[in-house]
Amino acid sequence: MSITTAPAPLAAADSEALAQRYRDVRALSLALAAPLSDADATAQSMPDASPAKWHLAHSSWFFETFVLRDHLPGYRLVDERWPYLFNSYYEAEGERHARPRRGLLTRPALDEVLTYRARVDEAFLSALPMLAETCPELIELGLQHEQQHQELLLTDIKHLFSCNPLGPALWPPVHEPQHYPTPLVWHAGPEGIVEIGAGAAGFAFDNERPAHPALLAPHALANRTITNGEWFEFIDDNGYATPTLWLSDGWDWVNRESVEHPLYWRRSHHVWEQFTLAGWQPVDPAAPVTHVSFYEADAYAAWAGARLPTEQEWEAAARTADPMAGVQLDGPGPVGPRFEEAGEGFTSLFGNVWEWTGSAYRPYPGFRTAPGAVGEYNGKFMSSQFVLKGGSCATPRGHVRASYRNFFHPHQRWQFTGLRLAKDL
Amino acid sequence: MSITTAPAPLAAADSEALAQRYRDVRALSLALAAPLSDADATAQSMPDASPAKWHLAHSSWFFETFVLRDHLPGYRLVDERWPYLFNSYYEAEGERHARPRRGLLTRPALDEVLTYRARVDEAFLSALPMLAETCPELIELGLQHEQQHQELLLTDIKHLFSCNPLGPALWPPVHEPQHYPTPLVWHAGPEGIVEIGAGAAGFAFDNERPAHPALLAPHALANRTITNGEWFEFIDDNGYATPTLWLSDGWDWVNRESVEHPLYWRRSHHVWEQFTLAGWQPVDPAAPVTHVSFYEADAYAAWAGARLPTEQEWEAAARTADPMAGVQLDGPGPVGPRFEEAGEGFTSLFGNVWEWTGSAYRPYPGFRTAPGAVGEYNGKFMSSQFVLKGGSCATPRGHVRASYRNFFHPHQRWQFTGLRLAKDL
Amino acid sequence: MSITTAPAPLAAADSEALAQRYRDVRALSLALAAPLSDADATAQSMPDASPAKWHLAHSSWFFETFVLRDHLPGYRLVDERWPYLFNSYYEAEGERHARPRRGLLTRPALDEVLTYRARVDEAFLSALPMLAETCPELIELGLQHEQQHQELLLTDIKHLFSCNPLGPALWPPVHEPQHYPTPLVWHAGPEGIVEIGAGAAGFAFDNERPAHPALLAPHALANRTITNGEWFEFIDDNGYATPTLWLSDGWDWVNRESVEHPLYWRRSHHVWEQFTLAGWQPVDPAAPVTHVSFYEADAYAAWAGARLPTEQEWEAAARTADPMAGVQLDGPGPVGPRFEEAGEGFTSLFGNVWEWTGSAYRPYPGFRTAPGAVGEYNGKFMSSQFVLKGGSCATPRGHVRASYRNFFHPHQRWQFTGLRLAKDL
Amino acid sequence: MSITTAPAPLAAADSEALAQRYRDVRALSLALAAPLSDADATAQSMPDASPAKWHLAHSSWFFETFVLRDHLPGYRLVDERWPYLFNSYYEAEGERHARPRRGLLTRPALDEVLTYRARVDEAFLSALPMLAETCPELIELGLQHEQQHQELLLTDIKHLFSCNPLGPALWPPVHEPQHYPTPLVWHAGPEGIVEIGAGAAGFAFDNERPAHPALLAPHALANRTITNGEWFEFIDDNGYATPTLWLSDGWDWVNRESVEHPLYWRRSHHVWEQFTLAGWQPVDPAAPVTHVSFYEADAYAAWAGARLPTEQEWEAAARTADPMAGVQLDGPGPVGPRFEEAGEGFTSLFGNVWEWTGSAYRPYPGFRTAPGAVGEYNGKFMSSQFVLKGGSCATPRGHVRASYRNFFHPHQRWQFTGLRLAKDL
Repeated sequence: MSITTAPAPLAAADSEALAQRYRDVRALSLALAAPLSDADATAQSMPDASPAKWHLAHSSWFFETFVLRDHLPGYRLVDERWPYLFNSYYEAEGERHARPRRGLLTRPALDEVLTYRARVDEAFLSALPMLAETCPELIELGLQHEQQHQELLLTDIKHLFSCNPLGPALWPPVHEPQHYPTPLVWHAGPEGIVEIGAGAAGFAFDNERPAHPALLAPHALANRTITNGEWFEFIDDNGYATPTLWLSDGWDWVNRESVEHPLYWRRSHHVWEQFTLAGWQPVDPAAPVTHVSFYEADAYAAWAGARLPTEQEWEAAARTADPMAGVQLDGPGPVGPRFEEAGEGFTSLFGNVWEWTGSAYRPYPGFRTAPGAVGEYNGKFMSSQFVLKGGSCATPRGHVRASYRNFFHPHQRWQFTGLRLAKDL
Repeated sequence: MSITTAPAPLAAADSEALAQRYRDVRALSLALAAPLSDADATAQSMPDASPAKWHLAHSSWFFETFVLRDHLPGYRLVDERWPYLFNSYYEAEGERHARPRRGLLTRPALDEVLTYRARVDEAFLSALPMLAETCPELIELGLQHEQQHQELLLTDIKHLFSCNPLGPALWPPVHEPQHYPTPLVWHAGPEGIVEIGAGAAGFAFDNERPAHPALLAPHALANRTITNGEWFEFIDDNGYATPTLWLSDGWDWVNRESVEHPLYWRRSHHVWEQFTLAGWQPVDPAAPVTHVSFYEADAYAAWAGARLPTEQEWEAAARTADPMAGVQLDGPGPVGPRFEEAGEGFTSLFGNVWEWTGSAYRPYPGFRTAPGAVGEYNGKFMSSQFVLKGGSCATPRGHVRASYRNFFHPHQRWQFTGLRLAKDL
Repeated sequence: MSITTAPAPLAAADSEALAQRYRDVRALSLALAAPLSDADATAQSMPDASPAKWHLAHSSWFFETFVLRDHLPGYRLVDERWPYLFNSYYEAEGERHARPRRGLLTRPALDEVLTYRARVDEAFLSALPMLAETCPELIELGLQHEQQHQELLLTDIKHLFSCNPLGPALWPPVHEPQHYPTPLVWHAGPEGIVEIGAGAAGFAFDNERPAHPALLAPHALANRTITNGEWFEFIDDNGYATPTLWLSDGWDWVNRESVEHPLYWRRSHHVWEQFTLAGWQPVDPAAPVTHVSFYEADAYAAWAGARLPTEQEWEAAARTADPMAGVQLDGPGPVGPRFEEAGEGFTSLFGNVWEWTGSAYRPYPGFRTAPGAVGEYNGKFMSSQFVLKGGSCATPRGHVRASYRNFFHPHQRWQFTGLRLAKDL
Repeated sequence: MSITTAPAPLAAADSEALAQRYRDVRALSLALAAPLSDADATAQSMPDASPAKWHLAHSSWFFETFVLRDHLPGYRLVDERWPYLFNSYYEAEGERHARPRRGLLTRPALDEVLTYRARVDEAFLSALPMLAETCPELIELGLQHEQQHQELLLTDIKHLFSCNPLGPALWPPVHEPQHYPTPLVWHAGPEGIVEIGAGAAGFAFDNERPAHPALLAPHALANRTITNGEWFEFIDDNGYATPTLWLSDGWDWVNRESVEHPLYWRRSHHVWEQFTLAGWQPVDPAAPVTHVSFYEADAYAAWAGARLPTEQEWEAAARTADPMAGVQLDGPGPVGPRFEEAGEGFTSLFGNVWEWTGSAYRPYPGFRTAPGAVGEYNGKFMSSQFVLKGGSCATPRGHVRASYRNFFHPHQRWQFTGLRLAKDL
């Protein structure tokens, strides 16, 4: 978030419209968590994941800390013990509960966290006309932050439920037929100098700025991401057992973790099934492959005689596409990614799967973090991770855009991650 | 449990009395768990501990499996998925959910587990007249087993709550004054051949049998266990930093884990506090020290110029004492061990703290395990553990006896463990 | 070593005889290490093992420290840096180089260590007439200590060489035919009270004292240890895959380490081979099985419907046997254990394989450690280990006796360890 | 190495000149290893490092495999067992000895390895006229490869010796006065499109190709790298304890490893000392800081209000500098980096310290690996590492150039690594 350079986008905003947006975003978190019991919302299945209850509390702590505490004179914390529990990683905000032990916080109970949310909402909405004047960027950052945690809440619950032999479902399966994907077609991308990153207008995270020129070599991108059916071929061709396809770290990972298929897949009586938010379901060959790591994506590309796109190539291709298209999250119910109806050019750039790029996550030329604790939001993670683009079926609609830079470590795959091929021309 | 050699103790039992005992034991489990939320009952704070919900389910599974399934013709399991989840360690009963991942079982919910218990109780009580004829020892074993899990439920919840920065209390503190302990006095124990172990009559676990003679050298035992106040002196005399007091494994443990005081102690503004089932409380110098490992107990004894008693010395001293005396568990409420009023001889042999002995946990001469899966109950744990005697404030009243052999690894200390000194004469 | 209670066994000794014994013991260490290169003598293949060079230096440090430094007025250390490097585990002697990093000590070179040995020998032998008066027990302890390290030097080199794909041999194979073992026969042991432990006369380690009565239940012991051929049957009967035969810790170990046969065995073209000090050799079905852990020994006994003997049962049986019999070490050359010619009663009690007993390693009644640093010799290891009896083919002849108590952890098996069955009568 | 696109640089070469170059390179390896004992040359102090003996053997294996075996008809391996032992990481060459266990290879002895080298040299030099025609690129690759292992041999021995409490020296200290560094001055770098990477002529590794345009934003670079004296200020200003200066992974690393200063530094009586190839020496404030990780370099830059240069910025600045300048390795003796006499512009770009850049190590646009096993040389390591430029005092003279891309993980620091600051203009 580039607080200093962005023009205040909400300075003249209708305060009621902002209130409504706030209510909508906050309501979606509750709707997603609605099917969860107190226990469901408390458990933590791995250090990478957080309890649902923690997501609900942390996103409230974010508003309470950076908006109410810092910008509402006389504000008193709902509970002085919450910051220690619900600060995620902001060193400037002091000591905090160890991340891998979040699942031990059976107290406060889910009900107490919901009460905390309600009290923050109340204080926020009462003071909104004033706050919208004084810190509109922080309010917007809080909303965007909450949307990120909505996606994490879903992926983290999916991981937790996948660890349960009962295979519980968050919600019932949706039985819409999957569009059979169009054949894979290559489209040449722009060559030479292109504009990359977010301009000064509108909301963007600090890591998307500043906008700057980048130089692209001749290249082409595939019109769509790889399907489960195509992934079957990789498996059948011994892809997971062919070391020369893999990065060295990836090959170590495959062997150390005995990886033989995407996360959440299992073979049951010769049929591939995958764990979804609606429980175990057959793997649809026509649907986008997802829950693959960067290592897998890179090995697949090597096997296919191609490569992953750079983040600049992807962004240049997506610049004119509609980021509101696709099967993005707008309420409870999504089960997994699906292709939208095929268009002329690129299919499902947004809201399908997070697409691994070949670009390491590093700062843009001229990158500056925001002052204060929110400066830790993105910048300090700029080592050993890779950039993903486009958003997934679990990304709240309206959250993503062409310049958006998501990032994960190359072995991580509990997000809805997939891949699109690129090649040099 | 020595099924083959014990006379059937319940063959002529009044079936209604047995039903009442069953109801009482089962009700205590529910009463202990009553203050717990679904989340509290689901979380697992370390691999050694289990969720409260799991204890409630596992003790029901034990009755369902070894009594109902095996001895009630035509019985159908409440749910065919439960054995996989709630078998603890019985290899003969097949595959099971990994112990360190019990805390991920947010489903079945606590309510479902309570329903499971009710359905097992219903089937059991309906068939009790017949079952009391056919497998009385297994019924008794199931009740004793449930009592063991009642103690574990409390120690495991205590550990879980201790991990929470909020320091929740299971129940309110009890403010009874602690009897100031009598001075430490030595009593000579019996010398020569003594009878050890459980005879054929009455219930005993298989590891207490057969009764057999043992030869004791001249020795004396302290009249009471060590107090917190005496432990302060050990700390102040640098006991935790003096390697020559410690077993080699113990010294490694102290350094690896940075141990400087009993588990659940902390120093807050120069005052020692301890975490209890009623939250953080001051350490009472007059109360028995507890939550010390075998390594700590052994080092303390070395520092005091004494040693730990053997299990035979302890048992010989306790043979004529009343195992129903002491502050044993008979309902919700205990906070920690307390000395009973001082008598003439030994104080608080039972129901105070589990007393570490210097005896490695190994089979008695002539030891035989029961046939079938229940043969795995005790025998397979007879390596690298030490015997503890006497029961604690969290042991259900009526559960313990002089021949009872509890056992834990020398580093473990989340049970209510303490020590009594012995010396050679 | 019980310094205070043992009568000085060497007070009137012929000093020249002692000098000769010293020279003989010290020379054997050199003879065993003679085939080693500087690199062979420096490498450390696991934390449990030490480099040969380290054994040579440490046994010299022992003499230099506890005899020369402490009892020879005006003695100056050969090098003030050696104590830090060559103290093993004596806390009272101060800080020392970390055990798992001994293999990084490429300096001092083997030659320098040999020079160190020579200078200690020179100082020792010059002062021997005086030292033999003032600290005869410490001299004897130093010699016994060196003999223990001679055995360790061989087992540690064997482990190191086994890690080398070239399979180097320390010395050439010996092709003596193995006596085919007599059939396994049971001999009843003494029942009732027997005398156990070392009396006041002669050398014994402190852990063998005091002599004391022990009470034995009716039992029988096998006339010989288990053979490789018998172990084949255990393997063929799925012994390593049958959980109910194993202690719980043992079953965890088998699975964690993927154990399927004794250490140093491999199957090559359907033939079992074992790594020996003469390289890879066929497994001889008639020879004693060795390099099995306590867990394996215990599981084998369970499979055979028997048990391991207690240390008292073993000692009572061995009290009248000749400890100098058997294939004990008296120079370079041993490859593995072999049965001696069968006698009337027990075969190969000494100098065959270290026989696992079912007895945890704990102090005898009235046990006292020696004052000072040598008090750490044995006592501090009395937890989580098991007693082994009888010595092995790599134990220097004259070192072992009936009361000797060796001890290792239940998973360890790089020593020449085997088993003899026992049963209740 | 770009075999397919590079014109054969040696096709017309004077074969004798090539023979001389081969002899010179090979001789330097021997000269560097000359002070080492067999044990020194065998030990491995950490998995990242390899034994000196292994480096000597592996670089011979490289010539034997990719030149002699593949291009000399009828060639027979010196020993068929060596490839298993001395293949580093070439999957296409089959199974191999596990890297962390290289230190257990006490056999073959150093002498045998030297014989192996001699026999490879003999075969190579005999066949050189023919080989220079058929595979000149592979010969050059083998020589460059050997030079890389010369540097690793030194850094690995330094690490090994640093683990020895005796602090051995590889060679005597050099007492040349260090030029006091010129003040830190900023030089603006080229802006806009620059040419990056190695052109088709001359030797370059595959990862330096293809040459391609890159777009540089306005920026400046410091004239020299950071000194030890400047690093003292970072320490004194609490740099290692200020989380907001660090990348998140770096902060975890600092805390996990308790990092408080560069590798090989220690504080002795208030004076900073550093371990060098000549043993422990005082830290010279005027000398370049070295043995810092990427994390440390990045944190220092943040503390200084600057950043690390991108690899393109560095290369653009170095394009016209003389890569033969600086204190590069041309024989035994180097102790650490030193600044060359200050010039007008940049000082010590080459042969000083490997300079961390802010660029993740990823492929250039159009990057292609060579076919066959040598294709694994560089490409498979292109994840989670960072690019370093310029070479160090331990890089053989003539080995480095402006386009050279070295790469290490961000926590690694046993190479001679340092940093030069950059900033946006």
